[in-house]
Amino acid sequence: MNNELTSEIRKDPIVGRWVIIGKDKGYMPPIEEHIQRSEGVNCPFCAGAEDKTPPEIFSVKDSSGKWRIRVIPNKFPALVTEGNPDRSGIGIFDRMNGIGAHEVIIETPEHKKAISDLSKEEYTDVLKTYQARIRDLKKDARFRYVLVFKNEGEKAGSSVEHSHSQLIATPIIPKRVYEEINGSKFYFEYKKRCIFCDIIQHDSKFFPERVVFQNDDFIILSPFAARFPFETWILPKEHASAFEDSSDALLLSLSEAVLFLLVSLNRILGNPPYNIILHNSPLKNDCAEFYHWHLEIIPKIKTIAGFEWGTGFYINPLSPEEAGTYLKKGGEG
Amino acid sequence: MNNELTSEIRKDPIVGRWVIIGKDKGYMPPIEEHIQRSEGVNCPFCAGAEDKTPPEIFSVKDSSGKWRIRVIPNKFPALVTEGNPDRSGIGIFDRMNGIGAHEVIIETPEHKKAISDLSKEEYTDVLKTYQARIRDLKKDARFRYVLVFKNEGEKAGSSVEHSHSQLIATPIIPKRVYEEINGSKFYFEYKKRCIFCDIIQHDSKFFPERVVFQNDDFIILSPFAARFPFETWILPKEHASAFEDSSDALLLSLSEAVLFLLVSLNRILGNPPYNIILHNSPLKNDCAEFYHWHLEIIPKIKTIAGFEWGTGFYINPLSPEEAGTYLKKGGEG
Repeated sequence: MNNELTSEIRKDPIVGRWVIIGKDKGYMPPIEEHIQRSEGVNCPFCAGAEDKTPPEIFSVKDSSGKWRIRVIPNKFPALVTEGNPDRSGIGIFDRMNGIGAHEVIIETPEHKKAISDLSKEEYTDVLKTYQARIRDLKKDARFRYVLVFKNEGEKAGSSVEHSHSQLIATPIIPKRVYEEINGSKFYFEYKKRCIFCDIIQHDSKFFPERVVFQNDDFIILSPFAARFPFETWILPKEHASAFEDSSDALLLSLSEAVLFLLVSLNRILGNPPYNIILHNSPLKNDCAEFYHWHLEIIPKIKTIAGFEWGTGFYINPLSPEEAGTYLKKGGEG
Repeated sequence: MNNELTSEIRKDPIVGRWVIIGKDKGYMPPIEEHIQRSEGVNCPFCAGAEDKTPPEIFSVKDSSGKWRIRVIPNKFPALVTEGNPDRSGIGIFDRMNGIGAHEVIIETPEHKKAISDLSKEEYTDVLKTYQARIRDLKKDARFRYVLVFKNEGEKAGSSVEHSHSQLIATPIIPKRVYEEINGSKFYFEYKKRCIFCDIIQHDSKFFPERVVFQNDDFIILSPFAARFPFETWILPKEHASAFEDSSDALLLSLSEAVLFLLVSLNRILGNPPYNIILHNSPLKNDCAEFYHWHLEIIPKIKTIAGFEWGTGFYINPLSPEEAGTYLKKGGEG
């Protein structure tokens, strides 16, 4: 950042996190990896290699009976499905057994394809698969949350090249989710309105430069206090707290939004690694009135400061307004 | 992780963060970078290149008048020193000007040296420099927090090879700091004891495997709910909330602890990249009774899951007990 260009410190109104936002015009984040898929020799996620994975939990098949999406247990699960939490204290500390589900959603049988290569209908089936798995895991009384996320590219944490997402069902609620819920609850108690709904309305009306995309059902925002260059949130326009209750039509609409964004990111940053995280309601909490589910999509840029996770304090050199403008143009081609 | 070995989910009692802790015996984290310093051609931080940096703010000199430690403003500051915060709202959002200080502490005139190559006395001077800068910046009524951190190695976020730390004075309190303060305040209100003091006592008595090192004044813990393999905390044994109030004798003792740990990490992981973050009280908040300053030291391992910052949910494949045992032995040589 140039000394003459002052920066701004902005607050995320939901979780109360402050972010330094640069005003360095034309900043482009350094990307360490540009994703190019190999031919996929001996890939366990490819069609034909089904015997190399644990048995299938769920699949979407085409009319000829071949799978197009396949859900399997993670071969190296962080949590195991058997057993009970056995919540207990150890002196002043609290612990429970590492029970949960850890699944892999193989998004396409073709090794060469990224989700940005899928058709709107094909990617909708990925979203429907998320939905089906969440609905199923919700029946298990031991679980409190289902975390759905995708790591695209090695630098974003993916260890298998073949396009896939992951799902972790846990007996606890992750901290960031908890903070979002508490933040939106606090706002609701004061205003009797959903904070996400307010942000959507506010930015649509006053800050169109932060609105990357809209269709009938979804809006993509470059959020006011974005932590990372080109971070975006995809939110349903109509208030909804549980992703798994979405209609098929809504998921088709969401698919369109996600694909618009990925095409744009790929054009601007040259197929960067990225993470997609579904921010959804906990399975048991009743936060229907005040929580608003959404996707957060964050391209993985080269480490800038390295202390973010230690402090919760972020420096984003690219203003969300500029990022939003880039992304809008990028997606329109 | 092997399917047969169950994992455990543990809660950090201060900030309430749950972490999945693996029980994979003998796990060694993948390290992407083993730090080896070059000769440092044209390095702006080397002795003799003083004209390549902005004017010096502070220095420690040897008896011949040559500097051994040098503090300069960051050439590309995230925040600028001139101006006022001008806190204001933009619709539903909150912002302020990006004022603050952003300084670089050059820890040695020698390009080839890491802080782990410094003598106990030399590194004590680095700690005294932190102290002097915090004391000075505390006088500025605009600032609420001074964040002191070190990124060692490119993968840990460092862009200059020459050994240095950074300091950012901000008009806001970083979120993680805020959470720690709130968490320890909550505990104090209930128990009338400092949670960090309780943890020190608890682990010393019941879990010696998590105690990496002790001298008269400091203890190094491999914390119960560590987020990362080989994450450690260095805490003063006697309750103290403000790092900058430490005596010279205490800083000498701290230097010994830090150097023990770095030697151990270097032996075990082969000169890994790492971050050191000073967790200190805010400049104005009165949290003397319940907050306990400390250092957090985290080696930078290869991205495992990539969604941690998005969810606040961590998976640590190495148990803190095993990490603690390794680190103890590693430091003892």
